[in-house]
Amino acid sequence: MSDSFTFTLKATSGEARLGEIATPRGSIRTPAFMPVGTAGTVKAMYPGQVRDLGADIVLGNTYHLMLRPGAERVASLGGLHRMMNWPHPILTDSGGFQVMSLAKLRKLDEHGVTFQSHLDGSRHVLTPERSMEIQDLLGSDIQMQLDECVRLPASREDIERAMLLSLRWAERSRKAFGGKPGRAIFAIVQGGDVPDLRIESATALAGMDFPGYAVGGLAVGEPQDVMLAMIETVAPHLPTRKPRYLMGVGTPDDLLESVRCGIDMFDCVMPTRAGRHGLAYTRFGKVNLRNAKHADDPRPLDEASPCEATRTYSRAYLHHLVKSGEILGMMLLTWNNLAYYQTLMAGMREAIRLDRFADFAAETKADWERGDA
Amino acid sequence: MSDSFTFTLKATSGEARLGEIATPRGSIRTPAFMPVGTAGTVKAMYPGQVRDLGADIVLGNTYHLMLRPGAERVASLGGLHRMMNWPHPILTDSGGFQVMSLAKLRKLDEHGVTFQSHLDGSRHVLTPERSMEIQDLLGSDIQMQLDECVRLPASREDIERAMLLSLRWAERSRKAFGGKPGRAIFAIVQGGDVPDLRIESATALAGMDFPGYAVGGLAVGEPQDVMLAMIETVAPHLPTRKPRYLMGVGTPDDLLESVRCGIDMFDCVMPTRAGRHGLAYTRFGKVNLRNAKHADDPRPLDEASPCEATRTYSRAYLHHLVKSGEILGMMLLTWNNLAYYQTLMAGMREAIRLDRFADFAAETKADWERGDA
Repeated sequence: MSDSFTFTLKATSGEARLGEIATPRGSIRTPAFMPVGTAGTVKAMYPGQVRDLGADIVLGNTYHLMLRPGAERVASLGGLHRMMNWPHPILTDSGGFQVMSLAKLRKLDEHGVTFQSHLDGSRHVLTPERSMEIQDLLGSDIQMQLDECVRLPASREDIERAMLLSLRWAERSRKAFGGKPGRAIFAIVQGGDVPDLRIESATALAGMDFPGYAVGGLAVGEPQDVMLAMIETVAPHLPTRKPRYLMGVGTPDDLLESVRCGIDMFDCVMPTRAGRHGLAYTRFGKVNLRNAKHADDPRPLDEASPCEATRTYSRAYLHHLVKSGEILGMMLLTWNNLAYYQTLMAGMREAIRLDRFADFAAETKADWERGDA
Repeated sequence: MSDSFTFTLKATSGEARLGEIATPRGSIRTPAFMPVGTAGTVKAMYPGQVRDLGADIVLGNTYHLMLRPGAERVASLGGLHRMMNWPHPILTDSGGFQVMSLAKLRKLDEHGVTFQSHLDGSRHVLTPERSMEIQDLLGSDIQMQLDECVRLPASREDIERAMLLSLRWAERSRKAFGGKPGRAIFAIVQGGDVPDLRIESATALAGMDFPGYAVGGLAVGEPQDVMLAMIETVAPHLPTRKPRYLMGVGTPDDLLESVRCGIDMFDCVMPTRAGRHGLAYTRFGKVNLRNAKHADDPRPLDEASPCEATRTYSRAYLHHLVKSGEILGMMLLTWNNLAYYQTLMAGMREAIRLDRFADFAAETKADWERGDA
């Protein structure tokens, strides 16, 4: 435990980085994958299981939590950690991304964004200041600045306008955050798929000396090579000694390739959402348990896995549970998927420590390509 | 462990009985509550959790499993125990009750019942012989005879016809079961709400010397006093040294009152189904977590409970999860409910051992009546 928020870079292998974020609520080993706990729960998992798989931190969604149960209510219940029985670090997003993707009747101006809840139509305002206040009420350890994320493809003008607005909101978010010992605020690099705008954003934010930097506005439908090119464009302009968080990413291959480009932190709904839809991530690629070919298959997903869900239950049983709409099917596949993601992260960390990241990546990809016969 | 199926009556307190069923797969402490694992899963629970709560046996539904994934398939996967990762005893019903409540286009005659699957319309035949064959393919430790259960209210003629058919099917089921060391077949007393028909059924079945006796056709909508009167009518005509199973029962109060009348075994979907619908059973009665009064309540359901779900999570959080439709809400409330049911059974067993069942029942009812303030 630490009484302040610090990031230590421990080793590199090529551009890949091994590090550790120390916080009063515990350490975060990087590269780190953060399971998504949208509404105060990593769906279909008990919090103790999430921890046991090796997750040091989970993500909460400000948009969802401000609408239900409400930030002030979470605070009165002792904060998000206590409410959801997760005493380890929590990162919250700013709410901005989900306002743009989920809310109704959005109106955005310099001040902030006004919107109607997708749940009950109630009217809300999210400004940089209110976003920081909400994240503080939630008790978040890593808080994100409010930003504007434009959908790609978009015109250079739209991307630039949103990037510049996000810079001004970074300053306002930072000021509103103030000084909170042991907690951190991360800035978000924007600029779409335009290299010079990405560099302008990164350079300006680096000058503000945030405790950490996120790359936002990627993994929104563009090809992986575009995403990786943007990361490679941005990385040299970010401080080496600060954590780098790629928001909303991604597939196991995205994680591997982004770590190779120097990313330290990730979050994504993919393992949990896929688990609720019958899809398993394994060492040998994806397995769609809905497929009838599994109906008589007595093999577990991976008998060599340390995860009980992965090594204990037959594919035939998982197929049966998925076809029958049984909650246990979602529970077991989510468990398997988060186990695979955390095992992949642990493998990457060990490979960086041994300075053999490229070999590890090649071996991992060879396993995926071998496929699940 | 035992290599044969035996029932030992260990103590009584009034009519309430403390016993133990020994089977090769483990012992069943009675009075026992069997969680229902309809389609090969106790919904929203890992099997290890069900065991840890004190369940010695679970129930599987022949109707559901014969249709999906199919009895022959379960057998080829090593049986139901292995498929669902539950190495302890399993009781299966005959399938008859669910054919009458769920299937389409039922046609019943002396031979058996022909019906269409509610899943895909496929045509199936269930006879006493096929029901025993299916239960054998599943690997069930306690198998139930096929019977006909009439809905109440019904005419004496209908009740008598179904009771007599059930007696003939008991003989055929018994013959089809044959001798299976370590496994048992239970007969089912029918006769609706007509005392002399109940006595006729119990007497005839007792004469066939089954390893255990169920009371069927109750808890189908009749008042509790009618149900208890039928149990009191039947009990003196059943062999003392055989276990008595009241099918499909019930509320905590039903369990308490039925044990008082000499019942040893129960199954019911109530704790699991209620848990998926926001309802918690506690020492102090039922708590409907959907109710807005819980939105700001930081108290757990029962801080003195040994169950993690019950003592750890606030009512406010449970309310939030239920309102948000989160799977974790169903997981935690099912866990709480099965924990409460098993705690109640353990309390009854201890009270019988100490010959203070009546006091225990009075204390338990006083707690329920105190209510959850």
